[in-house]
Amino acid sequence: MPTPRMWNHGAMSASDDVLATDLAHVFHSWSAQDKVNPMVIDSAEGSWLTAADGKRYLDFSSQLVFTNIGHGHPKVVEAIANQAAKLCTLAPAHASQAKSGAARRVAEIAPGDLDSVFFTNGGAEATEHAVRMARQFTGRNKILSRYRSYHGATSTAITITGDERRFPNDLGTMGTVHFFGPFLYRSVFDSQTEEQECERALKHLEQTIVMEGPSTIAAVMLESIPGTAGIMVPPAGYLAGVRALCDTYGLVLILDEVMAGFGRAGSWLALDHFDVVPDLMTFAKGVTSGYVPLGGVAISKKIRDFFGERPYPGGLTYSGHPLACAAAVATIDVMREEGIVEQAAALGTDVFGPGLAKIAENHPSVGEVRGIGAFWALDLVSDPQTKAPITPEALAATVGAAKQAGLMPFSSGNRIHVVPACNISPEDARTGLDILDSALTAADDAIG
Amino acid sequence: MPTPRMWNHGAMSASDDVLATDLAHVFHSWSAQDKVNPMVIDSAEGSWLTAADGKRYLDFSSQLVFTNIGHGHPKVVEAIANQAAKLCTLAPAHASQAKSGAARRVAEIAPGDLDSVFFTNGGAEATEHAVRMARQFTGRNKILSRYRSYHGATSTAITITGDERRFPNDLGTMGTVHFFGPFLYRSVFDSQTEEQECERALKHLEQTIVMEGPSTIAAVMLESIPGTAGIMVPPAGYLAGVRALCDTYGLVLILDEVMAGFGRAGSWLALDHFDVVPDLMTFAKGVTSGYVPLGGVAISKKIRDFFGERPYPGGLTYSGHPLACAAAVATIDVMREEGIVEQAAALGTDVFGPGLAKIAENHPSVGEVRGIGAFWALDLVSDPQTKAPITPEALAATVGAAKQAGLMPFSSGNRIHVVPACNISPEDARTGLDILDSALTAADDAIG
Repeated sequence: MPTPRMWNHGAMSASDDVLATDLAHVFHSWSAQDKVNPMVIDSAEGSWLTAADGKRYLDFSSQLVFTNIGHGHPKVVEAIANQAAKLCTLAPAHASQAKSGAARRVAEIAPGDLDSVFFTNGGAEATEHAVRMARQFTGRNKILSRYRSYHGATSTAITITGDERRFPNDLGTMGTVHFFGPFLYRSVFDSQTEEQECERALKHLEQTIVMEGPSTIAAVMLESIPGTAGIMVPPAGYLAGVRALCDTYGLVLILDEVMAGFGRAGSWLALDHFDVVPDLMTFAKGVTSGYVPLGGVAISKKIRDFFGERPYPGGLTYSGHPLACAAAVATIDVMREEGIVEQAAALGTDVFGPGLAKIAENHPSVGEVRGIGAFWALDLVSDPQTKAPITPEALAATVGAAKQAGLMPFSSGNRIHVVPACNISPEDARTGLDILDSALTAADDAIG
Repeated sequence: MPTPRMWNHGAMSASDDVLATDLAHVFHSWSAQDKVNPMVIDSAEGSWLTAADGKRYLDFSSQLVFTNIGHGHPKVVEAIANQAAKLCTLAPAHASQAKSGAARRVAEIAPGDLDSVFFTNGGAEATEHAVRMARQFTGRNKILSRYRSYHGATSTAITITGDERRFPNDLGTMGTVHFFGPFLYRSVFDSQTEEQECERALKHLEQTIVMEGPSTIAAVMLESIPGTAGIMVPPAGYLAGVRALCDTYGLVLILDEVMAGFGRAGSWLALDHFDVVPDLMTFAKGVTSGYVPLGGVAISKKIRDFFGERPYPGGLTYSGHPLACAAAVATIDVMREEGIVEQAAALGTDVFGPGLAKIAENHPSVGEVRGIGAFWALDLVSDPQTKAPITPEALAATVGAAKQAGLMPFSSGNRIHVVPACNISPEDARTGLDILDSALTAADDAIG
């Protein structure tokens, strides 16, 4: 006889119940489980979150940089409710209005002849499948990607990733090779200008391709603008230069638009700034503003046609999930109707560009401010001369001061990223910058 | 200047638009893209789907075996709409009522001390993370799994998988090793009885462990009941025997309940039938009935505590997504309130067991019927003596005849699986069996 179940969960509404239950039963991402200290969030609207204790927070994180249209947009909420009632879920073999609508919109947003869309549940799976397509298409195995990058946490994705989260997962057997991308503030090429950095980074990449052996390489994979690794907007000409190298050596170019795409960079896609068309493009996050998990790969005609008669050896249960696709359709339509991409561009030029420049002047701990649109990083240092990263303690104090004052920031490594909703009001954006300005005193205090 | 976008998508409602757009822009799982022929589905309710041409289909597939409570259950649809309006999405670091509620329910359903829950977007990611936990916990790399199994299609998951979809993705570098599980109908152990098959399969596994070297093996991973590979209910004692071997040799036992769990086998979990407690358990599909993508890993105390002070090196953007977790809470509560697990058990004993036995008597093409609850396979053959699999053409004719008569079946390899919603009415279940009975004439015709 099957084991009977002992049910003892109650209605659970008090915030202490939610927290106690989380601590008892939720296993947290990237964390030592005895050290997590989650904030209980009750509701959210636009750029504001309400915690269970009633305190409100201005969301400068977009959670993990995905609520590009803010929280609880009524048109997307309504689209989700309607789709749930009509056709909530479906096997990937079947067609639905929601899936066709989402695929057409993504194809219109993707550049060049990237007109075919494979849907996944998120960005990591998008990386997995883009890489698989490139490997099958070329018959080669190696993937080149840059240090200081993030492409997800499944087996292949985490070893393509160029940050320290790769280390405990890297057995050295996945066929991934890393090179250095352009990053003038912390140049490994001893460059003095963006032009030099661009030229030297391209030369370095070409040498890497030649010495690894072009006949062993399937693809070069890059975030159009590296996100979690530090929001390093590439110098003019870099991505076009990488495209040219891929053409010269017969390699597939995969651009990752998971974080940088769908309005974040003040353009539909970050690659729009750089006049470059990849062979494959991954996306996730902003495509649904995170309302329902969705990611995918936009695929060029030549790669789609490679799998015309030959089966693509990959798939997943929820590819083209109607609820997720309906959220994508509504999100993209809302972004168009409300000009949210244009709002993000204006935030960059009118609010964050000048506002963060002023903050950098005020605070010796701010080594560099860089970014575009609604996508900015403050590179914090404990010594402005050596650019030594701020200590984890000083960063924690800064983040803590911001939270205390009602701002939910995003921090990564030695940085604070300013990544609010792309449609945050200029007033709220300035309020957030003011809080950040005050909080950074804690970072300055740590400078010797 | 960023590239402007040319928008040319219309309202899209006619079914020909949906189909034409799908063919133009959707890249399909596991398919040669020029050969896909999707059916356009407009809406669904309970066990019935309505196609865009108005034709209705009785769903004997549960799509990809995940709509365990049927389509469009009003209580789950309402829970999704409510959660979308209140708090649709949240970063994984924060706590929410939905996530705590889902974690507590899964912990109550999971056996033994598997009280900690890591949420993913689906089953493949659940495999990825369960394997990562086992590898980190043991400091070893190899994963043993059985031929004739499916564990997902990301890099590690697809090489753990024991069916032919692994072949084009297997570079032999992932540390996965396969062994043979018990399968009396097609025994590789020359067994005559279930007892013999069980004993010989355990002896084979022990020899494999010994010869691979226990000190090189992190985990043994098995579906409690292999699903897509053929619904082979293991003989009494097999899983307990595997548990004993894992204890003897110090290996982690991972049981995969992605397809077999959450009511499918006429029990909350398939493992409930076998008196076995794994160290890690993966789940997905039925936990939300597929309404919102969700999967995860239930984790034993010793493995959770291993990551108490030491960070777990994995995570994902949508871990514990509020909308997905709200769907899980509502699905589990509906299953309890309406006795859906009990309904699945009764379907097995009262309808499918006797009904399929009769079908097997009627049709020489049915080599074997096997299953439990709402989880059954018809192993179709072109020669009952040699058990040679039915030809793909004859299977396609059988499936086509069933669809023509208004039944949507599930086929895999040389089999038809009978895997409807766990709460399909006995009348609908019998209607479906009658259609199948007629359609199998096409399979019989192919016998020489």
